[in-house]
Amino acid sequence: MSRLFDRHRALLDAATAALRDRGYWAPFSEIPSGRIYGETAKSDGSAAFAARLGKPFSLPEHPETRRVGAEVSPWGPELGITYPTADAPALVAASRAAAPAWAAASVETRIGVCLEILVRLNRASFEMAEAVMHTTGQAFAMAFQAGGPHAQDRGLEAVAVAYEELSRTPKNAVWEKPQGKAAPVVLEKHWRIVPRGIGLVIGCRTFPTWNSYPGLFADLATGNTVILKPHPGAILPAALTAAVAREVLAEEGLPADVVLLAVDEPGREITKDLVTNPEIAIVDYTGSNAFGDWVRTHAGDAQVYTEEAGVNSIVIAATDDFDGMCANIAFSLSLYSGQMCTAPQNIFVPRAGIATDLGPKSFDEVGAGIAGAIDALLADPARMSGVCGAVADPATIARVEKAAGLGRVVRASTSFEGARSATPLMVAVDGETGRAHEEECFGPISFLVAVKDPDAAVAAAADLARRKGAITAALYDTDEDRILRSADAFARAGVNLSVNLTGNIFVNQSAAFSDFHVTGANPAGNASLTDTAFVANRFRLAMWRRPKAA
Amino acid sequence: MSRLFDRHRALLDAATAALRDRGYWAPFSEIPSGRIYGETAKSDGSAAFAARLGKPFSLPEHPETRRVGAEVSPWGPELGITYPTADAPALVAASRAAAPAWAAASVETRIGVCLEILVRLNRASFEMAEAVMHTTGQAFAMAFQAGGPHAQDRGLEAVAVAYEELSRTPKNAVWEKPQGKAAPVVLEKHWRIVPRGIGLVIGCRTFPTWNSYPGLFADLATGNTVILKPHPGAILPAALTAAVAREVLAEEGLPADVVLLAVDEPGREITKDLVTNPEIAIVDYTGSNAFGDWVRTHAGDAQVYTEEAGVNSIVIAATDDFDGMCANIAFSLSLYSGQMCTAPQNIFVPRAGIATDLGPKSFDEVGAGIAGAIDALLADPARMSGVCGAVADPATIARVEKAAGLGRVVRASTSFEGARSATPLMVAVDGETGRAHEEECFGPISFLVAVKDPDAAVAAAADLARRKGAITAALYDTDEDRILRSADAFARAGVNLSVNLTGNIFVNQSAAFSDFHVTGANPAGNASLTDTAFVANRFRLAMWRRPKAA
Repeated sequence: MSRLFDRHRALLDAATAALRDRGYWAPFSEIPSGRIYGETAKSDGSAAFAARLGKPFSLPEHPETRRVGAEVSPWGPELGITYPTADAPALVAASRAAAPAWAAASVETRIGVCLEILVRLNRASFEMAEAVMHTTGQAFAMAFQAGGPHAQDRGLEAVAVAYEELSRTPKNAVWEKPQGKAAPVVLEKHWRIVPRGIGLVIGCRTFPTWNSYPGLFADLATGNTVILKPHPGAILPAALTAAVAREVLAEEGLPADVVLLAVDEPGREITKDLVTNPEIAIVDYTGSNAFGDWVRTHAGDAQVYTEEAGVNSIVIAATDDFDGMCANIAFSLSLYSGQMCTAPQNIFVPRAGIATDLGPKSFDEVGAGIAGAIDALLADPARMSGVCGAVADPATIARVEKAAGLGRVVRASTSFEGARSATPLMVAVDGETGRAHEEECFGPISFLVAVKDPDAAVAAAADLARRKGAITAALYDTDEDRILRSADAFARAGVNLSVNLTGNIFVNQSAAFSDFHVTGANPAGNASLTDTAFVANRFRLAMWRRPKAA
Repeated sequence: MSRLFDRHRALLDAATAALRDRGYWAPFSEIPSGRIYGETAKSDGSAAFAARLGKPFSLPEHPETRRVGAEVSPWGPELGITYPTADAPALVAASRAAAPAWAAASVETRIGVCLEILVRLNRASFEMAEAVMHTTGQAFAMAFQAGGPHAQDRGLEAVAVAYEELSRTPKNAVWEKPQGKAAPVVLEKHWRIVPRGIGLVIGCRTFPTWNSYPGLFADLATGNTVILKPHPGAILPAALTAAVAREVLAEEGLPADVVLLAVDEPGREITKDLVTNPEIAIVDYTGSNAFGDWVRTHAGDAQVYTEEAGVNSIVIAATDDFDGMCANIAFSLSLYSGQMCTAPQNIFVPRAGIATDLGPKSFDEVGAGIAGAIDALLADPARMSGVCGAVADPATIARVEKAAGLGRVVRASTSFEGARSATPLMVAVDGETGRAHEEECFGPISFLVAVKDPDAAVAAAADLARRKGAITAALYDTDEDRILRSADAFARAGVNLSVNLTGNIFVNQSAAFSDFHVTGANPAGNASLTDTAFVANRFRLAMWRRPKAA
């Protein structure tokens, strides 16, 4: 078989079992602890990151006609790193040249290489955390988790789902058809796995590894070569990933160009050149609906998997833990300043208020409760910075300022020193007269939406999900019948629903090996991480058969 | 569970096992024998067919604004049957109205209904054979097999693949995340299967059941409602299928409109209205590349699965059974007068001839050998009619006449009494100077193409498959190294290859549960019958979760 496959076989088997079980399983620890990652891991990671600043990034043998790179940390400093790049035809040609050797490698060789890449990426999690922090603006703790182990979990998940699919059809079979009293017809049959070709993985600014690893590893496992196209503001995480992948490939005697980096500059993006190149057979895209539309329309016969955007809602019908609910929602709104595709935007509350364990609460009291919980959460400046992180895109700051005019401000957005920053803005609107909340407002912007009653709230949230897309929904309620009805309504709208979350678990969070991320059933994306449909069409089977020699 | 599911559980389990094994397995007997189907089955089937002629076809409760139907048997008589129909919006509305009950049925209920439909269709195989014979022009034996049991096999295959995929994720799970010394976070999670919506299955004239059952049953199993859109020349087989499906649905207390029939007339087709209807979520299409292009371009966000057309090739490099080879190819060219998507069109032969067990054979001698074998095969008039069947479309006759001018005629096409008919035309061309053979010439038309040598032949055939599509390829060769190289070349071109077939097995034949039909890896189609990709994206999963009560 394969040395690397054998080395990581137990990890793969455990991943496959976890996917069937859907309970909690986390192969790569999310705790940034020296006891787990090695006593010097944190300082080694910092040093490694610091050593890259202001220098050309080394990617031996990578196609290079020029160097580009203009990353600026949302926490302040310019990174000053340049990356090798080439135009789309040159990258496609290099990828094509690497393809035959990768396609010819056995399934076990490819899976082994993928697993080794993931394990090495895990070891580099502290350096990756700094890279993610200073490109996305995430605070360190989140950058470590989301950029490191949680992304690696999603990569492993894709490898495990792909391996199961690649193993489904035997390599060989004997087919013996009876012919009455005559001798049977006996054929030997042989199946080959045929990869589609070149996969293009288009990354986003806010989660450059987490959202790219599923497509990257699904492509690699199924035998396709990959061109990683990072957002020009978040190149380093992709470059570190490509460096590790190319290192492992070269060590195994395989072409490093199986994984390429397509770096460009803001305003001079080469994404469209790549998407429309007829040799690109698969596109994985994370980003806005507008460009997602363009990609889906212009990708020709390429398979396209997208995670786009949507409008996520919380419905508050009733609660038996008002303080716990407010604290939980406050954290979901504050975390990374709402720059998560899973962050809630709309909070639907009955106009007449709700029943709670603290007695009836009016619409305004619910708003005040959440706003107060945000203030309490962010009262300590270090925690404010650690929870909210920095804002990746200056346009988000402008959007927050504009959104303050869309209704009655329940909580004003504030900023803090040391980063481009914005704490949660909350604006009250009326769901019957206003439509402002129906548009996606990416960033720390939420709408407290007054509606007639809980059923109207669920109907409005589900309808919005169906029309505009949604990745998450949350419900607070104490009526079991209504909870079950709501679960049906959100399922029909293709949204995953969290009910009555309090404590240390949040609607924003999606756990690999248990939660599918995005359903693929509304405009927020056509793919789901990681179901069979995400991998099964990345390769095809070709058979040859002949009479079996007696 | 479900009564019907329990009744057919053993059949389903055996199908699933067969798919893993890929050996020979045929649940529905292809032998039109009274001992298998009942002593009076053949006469009962004939009587049932005859009773339908000249009358309105009964589909109780089916939407009906008018009746249409103008089928004429390629064997002569007008069928005179009319079918209920309505315009696209009315059919879509009826399908939508039936959807909630079908989506709400358990997986086992739906699978049980599908299996019961298939078993009843099997019992009706003799009537179906007459219906297929007198719409497609197939001779009775082929109409029985391809229209009946072989189509039912492909339907069962889709149900089995779908059931495995629907069973992959548990309905419920408990997720328990450790929190150090604190109490763990414990969530209960629940997954629901969400069908995409309405599936449109566009059938073809030549194989109205075989090519439609995979999409029909994959849609039904995964919870989608279906609108069957038959070719206006081959409605009856689809109508019989719909009648059986609606009968089973109604018996089970489910809406009969889960399966609808969209009948139209030549020149007044409603296919485009249906494809572009935004409520159509899935399209299964079998037909020409030209209309396939249109469907893929205009189906919007609907999932589209196609079997289009291609140019299938045989490469003759050498043989140790010249007579067996010629007889085998003769049958493949003659069967149903080449009106199979799997029928060969081009026969590449080295210009200098080949080595055989009967000594060297020149290019012309190879052509004469195959032409002679065709003449021998069709010498008996009854066998001629029984092998060639009738020609479905008058345009095919015109195409045969025109093709005779494309090169040197090696064998002229002939016709016979009692049917619109055409026996195989074979035309010799030079592969270096001519391009006529590179276009699909549907029907009993083949080109004997002179090429430099066997490697050039394989390269030309594989290249043609890659550019124009191909569903099958065949190779006759005695050099093991070259056979293995050719297997690689055809695999890269996405074509299934048959090597050295002689006797009672033919390149045209694809066996359910063993052979995948179409690879999806070249322009002959984007789907493969029946791999996981064919079913996995016809439904989505939606989850809800909440803290688990202690």
